[in-house]
Amino acid sequence: MRYPEALQRLIESFQMLPGIGPKTAERLAFFAFSKLSEEDLLSFSRNLLTLKSDIHYCKNCGVLADNDICEICSNPIREKRIIVVEGSKDVIIFEKTNQYQGKYHVLNGLISPMKGVSPDDLNFQSLFERIENEQITEVVIATSATIEGEMTALYIKNSLEKLNIDVSRIGYGLPAGGDIEYADEITLIKALEGRKKM
Amino acid sequence: MRYPEALQRLIESFQMLPGIGPKTAERLAFFAFSKLSEEDLLSFSRNLLTLKSDIHYCKNCGVLADNDICEICSNPIREKRIIVVEGSKDVIIFEKTNQYQGKYHVLNGLISPMKGVSPDDLNFQSLFERIENEQITEVVIATSATIEGEMTALYIKNSLEKLNIDVSRIGYGLPAGGDIEYADEITLIKALEGRKKM
Repeated sequence: MRYPEALQRLIESFQMLPGIGPKTAERLAFFAFSKLSEEDLLSFSRNLLTLKSDIHYCKNCGVLADNDICEICSNPIREKRIIVVEGSKDVIIFEKTNQYQGKYHVLNGLISPMKGVSPDDLNFQSLFERIENEQITEVVIATSATIEGEMTALYIKNSLEKLNIDVSRIGYGLPAGGDIEYADEITLIKALEGRKKM
Repeated sequence: MRYPEALQRLIESFQMLPGIGPKTAERLAFFAFSKLSEEDLLSFSRNLLTLKSDIHYCKNCGVLADNDICEICSNPIREKRIIVVEGSKDVIIFEKTNQYQGKYHVLNGLISPMKGVSPDDLNFQSLFERIENEQITEVVIATSATIEGEMTALYIKNSLEKLNIDVSRIGYGLPAGGDIEYADEITLIKALEGRKKM
């Protein structure tokens, strides 16, 4: 005796998702069967089906967007500076701060010899073209504080050396609310290097 | 700046599921977009869509099944005893023990004045009919050790009093591997009541 085929199939679908094991998948499938309405299931189903066809990469900056050009790139009052990030999620995170009025550029990954990702696999060419075409005056590199993030930042810095623009890396240090006691050594070294006069 | 509409819609779909908050839903939707293939999304989508139409309740015992009669009810060598449970999941759990050769009856809920569930809302009538039609000799009530479970068990016991069949309740006590130190009082009282000569 197993679950009905249809339930079993949905359990397997849920198990494709990260962090969802057999027990959770069972619980979700049971919930879908017993608690979701036909309309909920229909819309859920449709949203999965149209996911890839309805999402575009902005042809300018590479962010996930509703159209070929995202709303940031098509906004004429955005400042002529660019934050370079690894993925689309990072753009949303920066936008949530409501502090930055410039533009973004999404690399769609980081340089990683280990994973076989070379600069040619990422959106660098379009970045260099944009800097010229959009008369960008400042580039802030906001890749992660990992080896791959550092390597990618260095590559961008070297590539832009000949141009007359400000290139910077976002600051490192203690996170807001961070406790010295729990900070690792690298973070503390970076925090010391990044000290500011009070 | 928000996520693209299509991604946002899928995030909302995932949030309908229990235990999935905004952050997890975001992670799942991103994973679905970037890591699942078109075929995976298509099958996931189809499995949601066909969920309700492809699953039946067994017309005899009430368990979720592929057809109108489940494989247990249509198996002629199953013994003439019935375990009464709250839901279909419980049947699977008992079947996994591989120790029981009888049949089941799924009430599809428990009596609960609080939630407005009366005996008329549950599969009792079909239980009483089956006992007669299938010449059942023993009924084991396996509802949960909760107030609702107890109330339901009592209702069944009273309803079957006039019939000449064994009616029992599954045993209570310490779970396998259970530590006395962490057992609550009710469990200990029930474990004492359910003591067995060694």
